[in-house]
Amino acid sequence: MDFDGAMRQAIEASHAAQGVSSPNPPVGAVIVAPDGTVVGVGATAPPGGPHAEVVALRAAGESARGATAVVTLEPCNHTGRTGPCAQALLDAGIAEVAFAVADPNPAAAGGARTLRAAGVRVHDGVGADAAAAGPLKAWLFRQRHGRPMVTAKIASTIDGRIAAPDGTSQWITGPDARAHAHRTRSRIDAIVVGSGTALRDDPSLTARHSDGTGYAHQPVRVVLGQRDLPTGAALRTGPGYLHVHSHDPADVLAALPEALWVLVEGGPSIIGAFADAGLIDEIDHYLAPAVLGAGAASVSAHRVSTLGDRLLLRREEITELGDDLYVRYRRRS
Amino acid sequence: MDFDGAMRQAIEASHAAQGVSSPNPPVGAVIVAPDGTVVGVGATAPPGGPHAEVVALRAAGESARGATAVVTLEPCNHTGRTGPCAQALLDAGIAEVAFAVADPNPAAAGGARTLRAAGVRVHDGVGADAAAAGPLKAWLFRQRHGRPMVTAKIASTIDGRIAAPDGTSQWITGPDARAHAHRTRSRIDAIVVGSGTALRDDPSLTARHSDGTGYAHQPVRVVLGQRDLPTGAALRTGPGYLHVHSHDPADVLAALPEALWVLVEGGPSIIGAFADAGLIDEIDHYLAPAVLGAGAASVSAHRVSTLGDRLLLRREEITELGDDLYVRYRRRS
Repeated sequence: MDFDGAMRQAIEASHAAQGVSSPNPPVGAVIVAPDGTVVGVGATAPPGGPHAEVVALRAAGESARGATAVVTLEPCNHTGRTGPCAQALLDAGIAEVAFAVADPNPAAAGGARTLRAAGVRVHDGVGADAAAAGPLKAWLFRQRHGRPMVTAKIASTIDGRIAAPDGTSQWITGPDARAHAHRTRSRIDAIVVGSGTALRDDPSLTARHSDGTGYAHQPVRVVLGQRDLPTGAALRTGPGYLHVHSHDPADVLAALPEALWVLVEGGPSIIGAFADAGLIDEIDHYLAPAVLGAGAASVSAHRVSTLGDRLLLRREEITELGDDLYVRYRRRS
Repeated sequence: MDFDGAMRQAIEASHAAQGVSSPNPPVGAVIVAPDGTVVGVGATAPPGGPHAEVVALRAAGESARGATAVVTLEPCNHTGRTGPCAQALLDAGIAEVAFAVADPNPAAAGGARTLRAAGVRVHDGVGADAAAAGPLKAWLFRQRHGRPMVTAKIASTIDGRIAAPDGTSQWITGPDARAHAHRTRSRIDAIVVGSGTALRDDPSLTARHSDGTGYAHQPVRVVLGQRDLPTGAALRTGPGYLHVHSHDPADVLAALPEALWVLVEGGPSIIGAFADAGLIDEIDHYLAPAVLGAGAASVSAHRVSTLGDRLLLRREEITELGDDLYVRYRRRS
């Protein structure tokens, strides 16, 4: 059997679990009947709910018997808030399992061994690169580094300005770029701004569709800094608000022990503080085809004096979004 | 006959005339025998020398009789320092002419009429868009606007910095980006820097291959500003140096009455002065995958207070140059 198409479908399905599944990994699973028909698709439910395999098995029902399960992550072997997925696959009569990424978590690993011992044909490493670069990325990062993956979002002109001298910044980028940024917000665990930005702009920082309605998943909105927001501030309305009375980015991450992916939206000194602390892993750059020539720069750091102090990145994606360019960078390891 | 391939070849040939032909247009010409064989290729020689058609006809010799001439610009009809090309084509026995762009210059136009009157089959507008966007672009700009086309070159980090706080800037961009920028220098008429940059960096501003040898064509090197350079400065060595004792970009352009294409390399206040004066037509942006967080911004303008004051551009080209991104922008008209 060719697993590639089914694995692509599993990765695609796992997008729905991003942000929702934390601190568990956002996994996708597809059940394929012996004749090649997809009989079940699933993604990890919120903590306490079923894992992706179980969601997909429930969708497949009796059709799971003798079928193949294609999963982005090795099925877990441990009983946490839910039973082990390896056992659920056996109970459902799955004959073959293909998974992309081996579970690096010692408590959960071993699912492949359990399945093999029970006579299931198991294929590991199927589409592993694509799965590791997909929704699993931030979770894998957290497993390796013990902290969330941090993406800094920059929307700037060619000359790196994020606002004009009078503070006007709406809109440097166009509607396609803004829609893309809101979709990212709908997949992250937390969004961070400095208290200066929060006080000046009174942003809501919610993830919204272009018609203004909210996405199902909303990130925790975090304000970093000493100054309190007035009680009527947009950020203090609704769920998921956190104020970290500090200027240290590490304090933000410590306050988010279950977060996999954190987006830092600014302002320049907040992004600069994360850069100074070595805590920027990716950059989402929305680059508008314009030159301002004055106004705030996108990043203002303190620990930079010579060219060798720069943060070196590598480009991982370039996409044209209307008039703007979206470039995603990852820190060179 | 299908002229497209021959026109592409003519446009390609005309690159060799860029910078060299000024103030005449850099034209390319290809002579195609009735059996489809290319029997002559030419580009405009320096002023006083033969135009592209004549160069190509000379290469073709007797094979030009009954052949087709494919030219990026309408053959000229006037006797300047050289005789009219329309007459040269007739004398050589050319039976058919295809050209891309009609000559907007009243003194030179009329070549198509002369050729048609003499019984030559003439096709106009062949590949006109590609030719107008090629080496003819700056010359067409000058015909329309009465001044050279101005490109600002920016080599910056993601956050728009061109140097670290200590002034180090070598090298923000990599060897492929630098080679690309040197090739551009080899095609322009003049390169402009401020006296501050000239005094600080002592640049030569010559167009060099990656092995350090010079291109055949070198731009005039122009310094803008009140401060004189020491006699030993690299810019004062060799031919093609001009010091404009002014801070007004219009004075630079006035001092270059025969220039078609001028490249402004900086520093930030010089690019800002050109932006303030409405004298930036294109931007060559070399974008390095790095964040500095401090240091000089790429453009420093004075006449910008609110977002509406920004210079709006449109992207015309994106090319990956090693680790860097090259994006060419054109001012929105």
